[in-house]
Amino acid sequence: MVKTKILLEEKDMPRQWYNLAADLPHGLKPPLTPDGKPMSPEMLSKVFPMNLIEQEISDKRWIDIPDPLLEILARWRPTPLHRAKYLETYLKTPARIYYKDESVSPAGSHKSNTAVVQAWYNKQFGIKKLTTETGAGQWGSALAFACNLLDLECKVYMVRVSFDQKPMRKTLMNAWGATCVASPSPQTNFGRKVLAQMPDTPGSLGVAISEAIEEAVADQTGQTRYSLGSVLNHVLLHQTIIGLEAKKQLKLAGEHLPDVIIGCAGGGSNFAGISFPFVSDKIHGAKMTIIPVESSSCPKMTRGKFTYDFGDMAGMTPLMAMFTLGHDFMPVPIHAGGLRYHGMAPLVSQAIVDGLMTPKAYDQVKCYEAAITWAKTEGTICAPETSHAIACTIDEAIKAKEEGKEKVILFNYSGHGLMDLLGYEKYLSGKLERYALGQDELVKSMEALDSLPQIR
Amino acid sequence: MVKTKILLEEKDMPRQWYNLAADLPHGLKPPLTPDGKPMSPEMLSKVFPMNLIEQEISDKRWIDIPDPLLEILARWRPTPLHRAKYLETYLKTPARIYYKDESVSPAGSHKSNTAVVQAWYNKQFGIKKLTTETGAGQWGSALAFACNLLDLECKVYMVRVSFDQKPMRKTLMNAWGATCVASPSPQTNFGRKVLAQMPDTPGSLGVAISEAIEEAVADQTGQTRYSLGSVLNHVLLHQTIIGLEAKKQLKLAGEHLPDVIIGCAGGGSNFAGISFPFVSDKIHGAKMTIIPVESSSCPKMTRGKFTYDFGDMAGMTPLMAMFTLGHDFMPVPIHAGGLRYHGMAPLVSQAIVDGLMTPKAYDQVKCYEAAITWAKTEGTICAPETSHAIACTIDEAIKAKEEGKEKVILFNYSGHGLMDLLGYEKYLSGKLERYALGQDELVKSMEALDSLPQIR
Repeated sequence: MVKTKILLEEKDMPRQWYNLAADLPHGLKPPLTPDGKPMSPEMLSKVFPMNLIEQEISDKRWIDIPDPLLEILARWRPTPLHRAKYLETYLKTPARIYYKDESVSPAGSHKSNTAVVQAWYNKQFGIKKLTTETGAGQWGSALAFACNLLDLECKVYMVRVSFDQKPMRKTLMNAWGATCVASPSPQTNFGRKVLAQMPDTPGSLGVAISEAIEEAVADQTGQTRYSLGSVLNHVLLHQTIIGLEAKKQLKLAGEHLPDVIIGCAGGGSNFAGISFPFVSDKIHGAKMTIIPVESSSCPKMTRGKFTYDFGDMAGMTPLMAMFTLGHDFMPVPIHAGGLRYHGMAPLVSQAIVDGLMTPKAYDQVKCYEAAITWAKTEGTICAPETSHAIACTIDEAIKAKEEGKEKVILFNYSGHGLMDLLGYEKYLSGKLERYALGQDELVKSMEALDSLPQIR
Repeated sequence: MVKTKILLEEKDMPRQWYNLAADLPHGLKPPLTPDGKPMSPEMLSKVFPMNLIEQEISDKRWIDIPDPLLEILARWRPTPLHRAKYLETYLKTPARIYYKDESVSPAGSHKSNTAVVQAWYNKQFGIKKLTTETGAGQWGSALAFACNLLDLECKVYMVRVSFDQKPMRKTLMNAWGATCVASPSPQTNFGRKVLAQMPDTPGSLGVAISEAIEEAVADQTGQTRYSLGSVLNHVLLHQTIIGLEAKKQLKLAGEHLPDVIIGCAGGGSNFAGISFPFVSDKIHGAKMTIIPVESSSCPKMTRGKFTYDFGDMAGMTPLMAMFTLGHDFMPVPIHAGGLRYHGMAPLVSQAIVDGLMTPKAYDQVKCYEAAITWAKTEGTICAPETSHAIACTIDEAIKAKEEGKEKVILFNYSGHGLMDLLGYEKYLSGKLERYALGQDELVKSMEALDSLPQIR
């Protein structure tokens, strides 16, 4: 019997996060203010607490995980590493496929890994309330869960299309005591402005982020901060616990390094989590193919531009050097709401520029097909975002068969899809939308980038 | 740091199921035909395959789990035993609360434990298709999952009220390749009869069972059988793997036997699973309080009668000696669809009669209150059925505090509620229905029992 579950004990949890910024061969481009000057840490202090800003700008390779946080993370960590032997058999591939199961957290995805950390650091800093955005609802649920544990107030702006597609996500956040409103909302200046211009908009993560930041900085008591579920350095840092555990578990399974590492990538955090601890091996000479998978409806890595852009639609964030489609790109309403983001994390973007990663784009019809293959072989229902990683994994496993190579493929099973079954329903009944993104539309949304500071 | 997760390896999985029938001090009353004669095994052979009928009537204490089944069960087993230390802290109880997490199976509940076993034995017997009923959808999902793994066709009759409350359950079954229709349906003679008499009925498990059996026995090729998710001896047998694992895990946690064991009980299978392996200790002198928890809307154990009754509304099953409210009792549409069954498993019923168990009934408003307390302390969203076990656990933990006793409480976390959030939504918005079941209604539904054979 092939061992399909590789478990770690609580005592085997990593004690430190890994910071890729310390190892990137060409470093990171600094964040800028809109007029092109370097952004100082203090300028972010109305948005984030200073202890997290310190992590954001840190160049230390390893950053300690405080003991009380380890205890919170141990509620669901270490997560299992599984061997996908049923999928392997179905594909008749010589590849050995492993996946890290991040769906086991109470909120159902990897997002909890940073949610509890951010809530904890905010609490340490004396903050009483966090605001945030959410796409498909995974991040909002995770932050609601985290804020409940740490006794913080929590307000979530949920992208309208997902709010409507997945009404039970709001209930889940409510069960943990958080408030959730559809974005654009009439509760902020920016939300009202967008609603006036586009009353029927499906919304976007870029809009929701603007609303959440606006509410945070508007609190005159200084006790509210904003929390972001991806993109930023410190968020990706917290997710590296995934890959660090996976490394130990692969060793237990008798494997060396993977040949291929795959993760879906919206803002980049779950992908960074599984891959960054291995990127350092690649930088030091190991041969590995590392693939962030995006939606072909929101193809910043494969069709976007590496340049300075805002993280939100209203331009309230610093300018970050990243692959982007332009901050006012409005993606079509695919079911993988977490992939509907115009930009890619600066750390992931720089690693792509440095040739360490090879992005790919998949359309949702192919991804749901992969999700059904997964359900029928491995038995579980994956999130629409995760289906992108699975579609790519299947392709890589077939490629290994064609090449006759015994490759080791590792991917991140970022979340379950039990609350996102509407897309499955549409796919199974032949009603799933197929989208093709025209070049004109892309060129138009990227035009605005020319007026922003350029990378030197 | 208190260790909150007690894990077992695949190699530690029990190799045998425990059969309580071998140990019950007064044995089990035999199933009867409608005219009061003993039911022979052959008479059941159009409904179930003979290899499962052999388990149904077995008096062997231990029954081997075949190796190929162990491999299938190892997809999600052994399941974790958790210490609920956050709930303990919140309640300020000296009790140590442990729960077995059966929500980790792909279908989300304990139901998978018997679904794969029944599908496997049917497959061995040459069967090509299984029919079944489902209440809240947990059982139908589990059988759909199991039939997909074993390449059997699967048809599920889902109680109308749950079909409407939880539409994504149908999608889940479809994703695994099963067909799901609302019951009563126009697809069977019995369904059409019920629809003609009560076009607006919410349906019941009793009706759905009749429809599923009708379809199975109507197949002239003899390649279709019916599969039941609870009540019967062999179903409860398969669930004992839960309690057998829990016993090993409690020992690892440094505990002896629990003082209190709790499970919610609709047909009795998850409750039997957690408790039966400990009931044998109680029979041999150990002191333990063992509590099956039912819904006060469907109170067969606390307000019903121990007598012979049919397992379904149409009277197609054998007569079984059990606690029942009468086979045409139509429960109100509480959200815990799995508890909407008129009878209790003969094995559990006999154990109650023998004084080995102490049933309790809870109303759904109190249970959702407990579910929210759980979500805010332990962090997870439980199924509406499971909330009944949690409500009782909280009461027992408070009792331990009042008595100043360091009791060990063990309960079965039978399933997650991520697909059943509508009840949470109603509870949180103050719209959850509160039901009181009148004595007249009960007396009326139990009248029909007088005309059936009586227990001698």
